[in-house]
Amino acid sequence: MERLESYVSSGWARGAGKPSVLVNPATEEPLAEASTLGIDFARAFAHARSFGGKALRSLTFAERGDILRALSRAIHTQRDALIEVAIANGGNTRSDAKFDIDGASGTLAYYADLGKQLGGSKFVVEGDGIQLGRSPRWFGYHALVPRHGVALHINAFNFPAWGIGEKVACAVLAGMPVIVKPATSTALLACRIAKLFVDANVLPEGAFSLIAGPPGNMLDHLAEQDVVAFTGSADTGARLRAHAAIVRGSVRLNIEADSLNSATLGPDVSAGSDTYRMFLREVTRDITQKAGQKCTAIRRIFVPQSMVNDVRDELAAMLSDAHVGNPALDGVTVGPLATADQLRDIRAGIEKLAVEASFVVGDQVVAPSGVPEGKGYFVAPALLHCTDADAASAVHEHEVFGPCATIVPYDGSAPRVVDLVARGKGMLVASVYSDDRAFVTEMVMGLAPYHGRLYFGSEKIADQTAGPGTVLPQSVHGGPGRAGGGEELGGQRGIALYSQRVAIQGARPVLDAVFELKRA
Amino acid sequence: MERLESYVSSGWARGAGKPSVLVNPATEEPLAEASTLGIDFARAFAHARSFGGKALRSLTFAERGDILRALSRAIHTQRDALIEVAIANGGNTRSDAKFDIDGASGTLAYYADLGKQLGGSKFVVEGDGIQLGRSPRWFGYHALVPRHGVALHINAFNFPAWGIGEKVACAVLAGMPVIVKPATSTALLACRIAKLFVDANVLPEGAFSLIAGPPGNMLDHLAEQDVVAFTGSADTGARLRAHAAIVRGSVRLNIEADSLNSATLGPDVSAGSDTYRMFLREVTRDITQKAGQKCTAIRRIFVPQSMVNDVRDELAAMLSDAHVGNPALDGVTVGPLATADQLRDIRAGIEKLAVEASFVVGDQVVAPSGVPEGKGYFVAPALLHCTDADAASAVHEHEVFGPCATIVPYDGSAPRVVDLVARGKGMLVASVYSDDRAFVTEMVMGLAPYHGRLYFGSEKIADQTAGPGTVLPQSVHGGPGRAGGGEELGGQRGIALYSQRVAIQGARPVLDAVFELKRA
Repeated sequence: MERLESYVSSGWARGAGKPSVLVNPATEEPLAEASTLGIDFARAFAHARSFGGKALRSLTFAERGDILRALSRAIHTQRDALIEVAIANGGNTRSDAKFDIDGASGTLAYYADLGKQLGGSKFVVEGDGIQLGRSPRWFGYHALVPRHGVALHINAFNFPAWGIGEKVACAVLAGMPVIVKPATSTALLACRIAKLFVDANVLPEGAFSLIAGPPGNMLDHLAEQDVVAFTGSADTGARLRAHAAIVRGSVRLNIEADSLNSATLGPDVSAGSDTYRMFLREVTRDITQKAGQKCTAIRRIFVPQSMVNDVRDELAAMLSDAHVGNPALDGVTVGPLATADQLRDIRAGIEKLAVEASFVVGDQVVAPSGVPEGKGYFVAPALLHCTDADAASAVHEHEVFGPCATIVPYDGSAPRVVDLVARGKGMLVASVYSDDRAFVTEMVMGLAPYHGRLYFGSEKIADQTAGPGTVLPQSVHGGPGRAGGGEELGGQRGIALYSQRVAIQGARPVLDAVFELKRA
Repeated sequence: MERLESYVSSGWARGAGKPSVLVNPATEEPLAEASTLGIDFARAFAHARSFGGKALRSLTFAERGDILRALSRAIHTQRDALIEVAIANGGNTRSDAKFDIDGASGTLAYYADLGKQLGGSKFVVEGDGIQLGRSPRWFGYHALVPRHGVALHINAFNFPAWGIGEKVACAVLAGMPVIVKPATSTALLACRIAKLFVDANVLPEGAFSLIAGPPGNMLDHLAEQDVVAFTGSADTGARLRAHAAIVRGSVRLNIEADSLNSATLGPDVSAGSDTYRMFLREVTRDITQKAGQKCTAIRRIFVPQSMVNDVRDELAAMLSDAHVGNPALDGVTVGPLATADQLRDIRAGIEKLAVEASFVVGDQVVAPSGVPEGKGYFVAPALLHCTDADAASAVHEHEVFGPCATIVPYDGSAPRVVDLVARGKGMLVASVYSDDRAFVTEMVMGLAPYHGRLYFGSEKIADQTAGPGTVLPQSVHGGPGRAGGGEELGGQRGIALYSQRVAIQGARPVLDAVFELKRA
């Protein structure tokens, strides 16, 4: 069986000892194995910092952007082959696989363009500068400069491609070398992409590494100038936060964790309207796409009481079209969960919700198509209906990371639904479907503090958005509280995570010369 | 004896039980006592969040700025009385006391002006917005909105006034209520300022609270929307980072901790030049001002080998003018350390440095003026000289938070001194004294990743700066790594700590109407 290789210290390395086994989650067939035993993490971190960091910092934004464009193309050129890997190891349908892989190449291309725009500088001078004293000579600037450490990217199992792409794009453009640690269970796709990156031969030595397999004592090697960007569970996030090396070095740590995202149907929206159809379509997509394994997926569906029966019946009908099975088969729209552990957690989570809510669909065992009997980590899409929003706690606080969402009625007032949404204690995204500006305004102000992103669905844009579940590089991604408190992407904002903001004070003519700025 | 009162839930409250005693650190005479036993923290936090937060968010930036202006005036009007308190409880000379108190009123006034500039909005729309898809209708903005929690300010003992002022200014302008927890040992000044704030009668109910005395289980009441801004030791910072409530809620935590700040004399600077005199003056000030108890104070003095003897002799002569004693006496220029614990730590720290460096001045016991024999937490200003920078570790890594600094020679090259400075592993500020643009440029690029602020001293501005040790509201304050990784102030940047950045996506006409923006 193939043993995955890590790419460290500018070479491929195979771990020793008993490996973890990667399987096809639809059939449970083993696909590859991975181990990191014996891999020299200390050397890998030092190599990335010294060679990769130095090389990237010597490049301009435009040159770093050129690297990203080559990486984007490397993925896009091998798109078909990568899709097959995502189907086999990720349990992705073809559509799910494209979502992940095109997300990676698209985000890399977006940051390639941004590099081009930022041009010939090597760091960002932020804002206009400011006079510090009575005389205009005593002056201050702020700059964002690349940190001199390594960016460790700990990615989640659900987006092995996009996770690499979005994090690498921001770090490399900022001028930091990266070490990617994909989730082991779905690391096959990450390893294939790493191979493409290395073979593209555009990355300076040390700028990119990949650790395929268990993390071992990897975190112990973190130091003051490093950055950790983590996407995964709140429990792992909490362990990272308290990790000795991270605490000791004030290592910058970005966490993207659990999120009880919501969709709210506005009280103005009538059944049958374009906005209504958009709402139903996007909720259904978030339940079924990637078998609900999206950190941005809608978990709570807030519906005015008067519309609950309509919405319930429409969603039930749409979900009845879902075809659960082996994603290698044509026509399958919902694949398996990624791992046996996830299957156990999601089943337990749905049971937990079912104490507070009743099933609309999903309480029947569905035999998945195209898999040996009893095999595969399948769960049928589940829609629940919680009639007592105030009594519920799991509905608002327990993320079921699978094809599952709960309808929660509200009285049609913005303050009431804001209060209910906020019970999730910090989310990545909330979507609101309404064409009533007064309602939208109240929702913006009410929801904003609890979210990293708000998405307003409306008939005016019904034909052109990819829905709230799609993370665009233009907008920040992350959320406060339970969602981890992180922030990534957001156009140029995305390089801040990998930069040190520094105030620079001095005589204006000197600083202007240093920054090659003209006087105003 | 006076028992300090806390101001919580919009009322003054006195703790029960055995109190901590605040003393005059020059004479060890008790001045007041403080206890928080029995104070209802849960109610205090809830009151601040619900009343204070709501009230501040309903105000515009201009209105919040008006509050800050009134607070600034409340301090300035009582400046003389406050100076006496700072002399008595803080061990401050009159000049030290002014530095702290005027820093508070000045920073509040600066943010009052910023509020006026930001005008009639209640939150910040960041940047221009961006088209998200093929059509200009599908559009995105970013906004910074006030978080819905409470801002807990845990301040250091050395700047009881400025610490309140700078943190309150940013939080209140952003729209968050604050709970101030001053260091107990020097809380008398903080309590006097709190009284002035409350009596000014400009703060909405719940917008300001103060906890005078030990923190008890205060931190257990933190939740997802709260912010903690801490200034103090790295050890306490590490405990905060791993605190259960902070980890669980991803409570936003800003830490400003230890810092081995440096001053570098450029190889171009000749003895006797204006830049040279500026360098000597600012180094001396940082050793003596506040008895060296400034987080920004210069701890390491990097001097080209050829200049070391000159600099050593000049600094020794200047330090010989320092007059250590009871700061209530005219002519005293160096007061005591703030506490007996600090005295013990600083003595131990100087001994630690003396293993790696030799005394230039400060190895003699000096009898302080105007105090009863054997009383007071005095230490003489110490200047050391480390001849082997590479063998040294404590010099680069152990912050001695008192009137103490070490001369370290270097070869006059920028890369070499950058390497030495960086051994501090993350600092608040580095100062560089040079009129050579090539050297300055190398120093900017080399030092920036390790610092929150760089200060370039030069004859061109020798007559108008307050030195590297003065934290200006226009420039960010904080530093990576050992310095805690925090960031405060920096003009409008200072409100980001108390805000949630949120991406808002939707139909452009709807969002423009919500933000009352005109189309471009």
